[in-house]
Amino acid sequence: MGEESLMVRFAAVVSYKGKDFFGYQCQPGKRTVQGVFEEALKMIHKNDIKSEGAGRTDTGVHAYGQVIAFNSDKDRLSEKIMKDALNAYLPDDLYVRRVHLVKNNFSPRYLAKKRIYHYYIFNNDEPNMIFKDYSWWFPYSLDLVSMRKASVYLLGEKDFSSFKTGKDDRSPIRTIQSIRILSLRKNLILFRIEGISFLRRMVRNIVGTLIKIGTHAFEPDEMNNFIQAKNRSVLPGTAPGHGLFLYKIVFDEFET
Amino acid sequence: MGEESLMVRFAAVVSYKGKDFFGYQCQPGKRTVQGVFEEALKMIHKNDIKSEGAGRTDTGVHAYGQVIAFNSDKDRLSEKIMKDALNAYLPDDLYVRRVHLVKNNFSPRYLAKKRIYHYYIFNNDEPNMIFKDYSWWFPYSLDLVSMRKASVYLLGEKDFSSFKTGKDDRSPIRTIQSIRILSLRKNLILFRIEGISFLRRMVRNIVGTLIKIGTHAFEPDEMNNFIQAKNRSVLPGTAPGHGLFLYKIVFDEFET
Repeated sequence: MGEESLMVRFAAVVSYKGKDFFGYQCQPGKRTVQGVFEEALKMIHKNDIKSEGAGRTDTGVHAYGQVIAFNSDKDRLSEKIMKDALNAYLPDDLYVRRVHLVKNNFSPRYLAKKRIYHYYIFNNDEPNMIFKDYSWWFPYSLDLVSMRKASVYLLGEKDFSSFKTGKDDRSPIRTIQSIRILSLRKNLILFRIEGISFLRRMVRNIVGTLIKIGTHAFEPDEMNNFIQAKNRSVLPGTAPGHGLFLYKIVFDEFET
Repeated sequence: MGEESLMVRFAAVVSYKGKDFFGYQCQPGKRTVQGVFEEALKMIHKNDIKSEGAGRTDTGVHAYGQVIAFNSDKDRLSEKIMKDALNAYLPDDLYVRRVHLVKNNFSPRYLAKKRIYHYYIFNNDEPNMIFKDYSWWFPYSLDLVSMRKASVYLLGEKDFSSFKTGKDDRSPIRTIQSIRILSLRKNLILFRIEGISFLRRMVRNIVGTLIKIGTHAFEPDEMNNFIQAKNRSVLPGTAPGHGLFLYKIVFDEFET
């Protein structure tokens, strides 16, 4: 008789271009990141394998350091060989950067210590064909100083009910550790937002609101009123998905 | 009776993302840059309008400063309004940056004084989902000094028969004014190639050959033998289309 195989758990660090996915999470009849990833798992394992992602990115949202964990009976495969096997079956807009062997109870969704999102604004009067799938083209003048002032109100542990869109039954209390607004070159602006976890569309609602303040539609201290309202309907805007990147996730065991 | 309209000639400076076009030139049943542009011209003029481009870019090749000229009976439209009208009918991967009113004999193909092409190499062991449509992912080590040495042999007026692919009945004598190979950041390399005009696939054949020299498959002075052979079959490689940009064209009247 052959040797019995042991169940092991792997965590894959994956990057993807969001344009041609209907978001992260499986949906019947739609091309999703999780669906495409689980098809590759099935090709390798010859049966259905469930997976768990660290963040449920929306349609069009990109990832550089998403994490997807799954159990496997391929205990003899090294991390490197599992990585190569997955990439052999994945399409060219979804790529496994690394695979880590993790503990059996490893949960990318619940054990992440920090998540970092990047949001790019292409702030130029003309659009750019190269940046268009990866940034929000915003042709009006933006006051970075006002946006930075407003962003300070968002730091720390708060009730972010105003910044949540759609169904999300979790507690609205979230902690934002850092928001940096960087002018990368004359027309490219990067929002770098760090927190432990975020509500649905929270990052895009934050960026959309900061942009309105950047155009002087609202004063920076209005941000405090938006937070206090605890009501999504007070918010002036949402930034589109294609400017957003799930950039990095930090766990005790590794970071992406 | 209404006033008679005068025929005028416009030159549009256009940028496009090459991914979803079967190259520049019209082909029956294919989505091409010229085909899509002429559809927009037809919407504006209510009849078929012929156009002339400065460079016939291949499938997948991008442009930042392509020029397309056409005759029009819309002599009352300003350059700005013609630009806005074209953009209103064009899809989001083809954009008119400017429109110039030009002389009736203006020919973007024959009157260009200089063409500048950019070619991007993403030189990293792992691919990048963001750069993948705009650069050639090349995961092996490249010696920039060897490539720069080899590039010097290409400068000036030469018979470039070895660097032409496919049907091109023009004289193989071309002039390359400048080749710069720049390390933009730790893993992004830019080839900037300036000439008056280029043979079919000439830039991609030059980059493909320089890359082989960069891996030490050939010595830099082998480039001279490739040129002297005047025979395409001696060349070791062609770079893929999706790393190439028709970046800029210089005319007496304007530059892109």
